[in-house]
Amino acid sequence: MRVKVIVEYDGSHYSGWQRQINSDTTVQQTIERCLCKLTGKSITIHGAGRTDAGVHAVGQVFHFDEDSIPADKYASALNSKLPHDIRAISSEAVFDDFHSRFDAKGKKYRYRILNQKRPIVLQRNYAWRVYQDLDIDKMRMAAADLLGEHDFSSFMAARSFVHTSVREIYSIDIEKNREEIIIDVYGNGFLRSMVRIIAGTLVEMGHGQKDYRDMKKIIADKNRLSAGITAPASGLYLMEVEY
Amino acid sequence: MRVKVIVEYDGSHYSGWQRQINSDTTVQQTIERCLCKLTGKSITIHGAGRTDAGVHAVGQVFHFDEDSIPADKYASALNSKLPHDIRAISSEAVFDDFHSRFDAKGKKYRYRILNQKRPIVLQRNYAWRVYQDLDIDKMRMAAADLLGEHDFSSFMAARSFVHTSVREIYSIDIEKNREEIIIDVYGNGFLRSMVRIIAGTLVEMGHGQKDYRDMKKIIADKNRLSAGITAPASGLYLMEVEY
Repeated sequence: MRVKVIVEYDGSHYSGWQRQINSDTTVQQTIERCLCKLTGKSITIHGAGRTDAGVHAVGQVFHFDEDSIPADKYASALNSKLPHDIRAISSEAVFDDFHSRFDAKGKKYRYRILNQKRPIVLQRNYAWRVYQDLDIDKMRMAAADLLGEHDFSSFMAARSFVHTSVREIYSIDIEKNREEIIIDVYGNGFLRSMVRIIAGTLVEMGHGQKDYRDMKKIIADKNRLSAGITAPASGLYLMEVEY
Repeated sequence: MRVKVIVEYDGSHYSGWQRQINSDTTVQQTIERCLCKLTGKSITIHGAGRTDAGVHAVGQVFHFDEDSIPADKYASALNSKLPHDIRAISSEAVFDDFHSRFDAKGKKYRYRILNQKRPIVLQRNYAWRVYQDLDIDKMRMAAADLLGEHDFSSFMAARSFVHTSVREIYSIDIEKNREEIIIDVYGNGFLRSMVRIIAGTLVEMGHGQKDYRDMKKIIADKNRLSAGITAPASGLYLMEVEY
């Protein structure tokens, strides 16, 4: 039986989602250890998105194959074993050919900025503090140029190897509420660090270090050096995976 | 020279503000160790409010006496030594008879609730998750009965010993924005756990476990058992101390 689980986690204290040989503090390993305690078996889980160290998830999805517990009971069973910074939200049986990553039709990411002079203390793991004044209108105009299908090589972490760097962005919304700026990006898929490089580039355009009219040129360059900095992991949230 | 410092901290990983013999992870000790590193001297600091383990502060105030650094430089000097979950916001010279606690004319506390069925993961250290439906209007009506000067014995942690349990509450505002409920309490001073017991009582009245019309009776009882539960420390923030 194939089981699909939606999971929320605070990435602050993990070295990212994916299992690593030289770290046992990834989210995947933590969940797999709990599944082992529950079932007595070594189970591999497959996540929809490989979030980096410090990145959070509100709606990460993973699947695995196992019959020992009814599918809809895995969420509460897992929560009895998981640390408090990882919670299974729901679990259900799916078709045997369901794949959390390959079947994803869309993903929603959120990038959260606190635009203030004062250092952030309570939010230090949950946002990027930007002290320069940001022009939201310029950021919105630049973001509009990212919409649609493009080769996003300029927004891909260096030393990434992918079959194709073409992705489609369905929408980007930028909302400001007092000092908080939320960038919601929705697309069919994202390259390594893509949302963080988009956020870093938009911030540089918002405070004038880069010209906000240059976004199309940056895309056309297909060169990581043309885009802005990679925004910190702490501000990024995987919100939802659509199937 | 007497120095007044405003400090913000994430209380999640501290056993409260006050120095303790059997714990070295209090906020006071952490700051005192940094002052010792900066000045080479053993300096005692005096805080305005003794926040409990897990309680946060946005505007805690403390003072100390020391001349080795200009008063307005202590904030940045401290921040070079402090862990990231404690930040000095400002420092200034004050009159030699200033006292952070005894001179406080008013204090503002915030209590933060997330009223949702879904477990809280990213906010687990920063709010109280209440899953029962809450009637905000009933909570507001009950809160109005707390205004003014009263003997708040019913809202004082058991085994507290104080000169007087009379305090004055200047205002209580309850705001709801989606699933977030913010209770802002402003008064001339607060007894041990008073804001948390107020929050716990208001929540019990909000979901009907207690009658919202009983607040005056609870005050009159002067009995801790008449009030509601003590809300968790994670939702409480010391926002500001007024002089």
